[in-house]
Amino acid sequence: MNFGGKVLALCGGVGGAKLALGLTEILDPGQLRVVVNTGDDFTHFGLPICPDLDTVMYTLGGVSNRQQGWGREGESWNCFDTLKDLGAETWFQLGDRDLAVHLQRRALLDAGYSLSEATATLYQGFDVRHDVVPMTDDPVATIIESAQGDLPFQHYFVRHRCQPAITGYRFNGIEDARPSPGFQAILDDPALAGIIVCPSNPFVSVSPILSLPGVRERIGKLGVPVIAVSPIVGGAAIKGPAAKMFRELDLPVSNQGVADFYGDLLSTLVVNDSDRSEPLNVSTQVYYCRTLMHSLADKVALAEACLSILKP
Amino acid sequence: MNFGGKVLALCGGVGGAKLALGLTEILDPGQLRVVVNTGDDFTHFGLPICPDLDTVMYTLGGVSNRQQGWGREGESWNCFDTLKDLGAETWFQLGDRDLAVHLQRRALLDAGYSLSEATATLYQGFDVRHDVVPMTDDPVATIIESAQGDLPFQHYFVRHRCQPAITGYRFNGIEDARPSPGFQAILDDPALAGIIVCPSNPFVSVSPILSLPGVRERIGKLGVPVIAVSPIVGGAAIKGPAAKMFRELDLPVSNQGVADFYGDLLSTLVVNDSDRSEPLNVSTQVYYCRTLMHSLADKVALAEACLSILKP
Repeated sequence: MNFGGKVLALCGGVGGAKLALGLTEILDPGQLRVVVNTGDDFTHFGLPICPDLDTVMYTLGGVSNRQQGWGREGESWNCFDTLKDLGAETWFQLGDRDLAVHLQRRALLDAGYSLSEATATLYQGFDVRHDVVPMTDDPVATIIESAQGDLPFQHYFVRHRCQPAITGYRFNGIEDARPSPGFQAILDDPALAGIIVCPSNPFVSVSPILSLPGVRERIGKLGVPVIAVSPIVGGAAIKGPAAKMFRELDLPVSNQGVADFYGDLLSTLVVNDSDRSEPLNVSTQVYYCRTLMHSLADKVALAEACLSILKP
Repeated sequence: MNFGGKVLALCGGVGGAKLALGLTEILDPGQLRVVVNTGDDFTHFGLPICPDLDTVMYTLGGVSNRQQGWGREGESWNCFDTLKDLGAETWFQLGDRDLAVHLQRRALLDAGYSLSEATATLYQGFDVRHDVVPMTDDPVATIIESAQGDLPFQHYFVRHRCQPAITGYRFNGIEDARPSPGFQAILDDPALAGIIVCPSNPFVSVSPILSLPGVRERIGKLGVPVIAVSPIVGGAAIKGPAAKMFRELDLPVSNQGVADFYGDLLSTLVVNDSDRSEPLNVSTQVYYCRTLMHSLADKVALAEACLSILKP
């Protein structure tokens, strides 16, 4: 696409990865940087696991399991089955091929690589040519506050299948975390033409990125368009616990709720066609198009729509 | 077998595991304790790997790959193949099912288990009913001194395929290591009727066990028979670098060399039938029988021979 300037995409897991894939189909590698949430990261069996970075990597690398919604296609489970036999913790499924990524990340970090450097090395292994960087190289842990007490995000999301009612959330370590070098560089790049907030969970996928010290303020002062694709369609989330979280936090489960959450950060909210009748009391522009992304064509079409909004 | 008292077997990897298997076929679980070398242990991809403990576990658990001489039978390599694709270190082969053991050992140690406790838990998972304990719960690292400099044992053994000429060896950490509780307990057990040094490498499999502070002295004062099965047959080692090490250390590659190495620790040296003509200048008893262990019957027969020597 003849798009002048660079685009920054803020991204969580599955939904964000879909739009990121659409963007990579249109933009040259030098035109796009994807910044990925790391608040979900955790250590399991001593291995550093980065669910969102890996979902984006597998999606852009063409090896993601689209039916399952996570992990790799054609995966095998021989290690995991043996872990079961040994009575190990098996609430987090680890495929044999997926394990290699966590092992190599462990080795790279132990060898002194930053998470950004380890991520770049791993992505190269999957022939991903576009820049994808973690939001930070510092440890940040999303904690879900619930009636059952504090739950590290993967425990809430995977182990407890999002069942506990949430009363709040926080990002441990966020005050001392700095944006990763790649994130900082794109924010400082005069060629940055706009920012796309992918249709990821606002609370636990996008908010960690925006909560890094200085980021929200810096974006506000950039003067470039900031558009968000609403993850809420017809009063429900396409995937994941976003709608449940809006409800439990006493926020409207609607595009209004999404617009309110992002507030004056946004210049445009992208809303699914089917929600045209929802009354919206917002100060931002609202753009209606098909936001559901089933096929690759859907992903490219939504990416094109987003870029058409950004284009001066 | 109607054997009165308890037996302690000192054991390294493959050769030792074979005799240990023979012993478990004869002795009840309460009659045998196998103490295994941990000087080969190392950390790889952040995971604690205990090659000798695992070889014994797979052998006693009936899942060892006997053709290959290490690892598990029916193993798959999907994680390892992916590690190759990612440009990771692949000099140490990690099967998918084998990996589960290292992952669970990591989890158990991180949860505060000692190596002895983790070992007992893992062995239970393979339905091993006889007691097998690490020589120590403390970190000990066998270092091979060579013309190429110091090499951690697995680097010498696997990465460099035993090619560097050795000039010496040492056990880092040995001065501060204590015998594991299970090892200490059997040394203190009045029912201990004898000790069998398995046909493992004297320098790097048995010597770490004997070099733990106080162990050699304690064994000397026990007053029970101590027999060693010579790993040298016909001037060569059955398996591994033992013969090469004898030669490079300017020691005779023979049963005489083995007898000299163990010295007055031994009451009996068990030598393969085919070496009857080797002149032996030793103060210990020499017992000739078939020491090669191909079949299970071979292993049981050698175990029976050893027990017949121990029997008062």
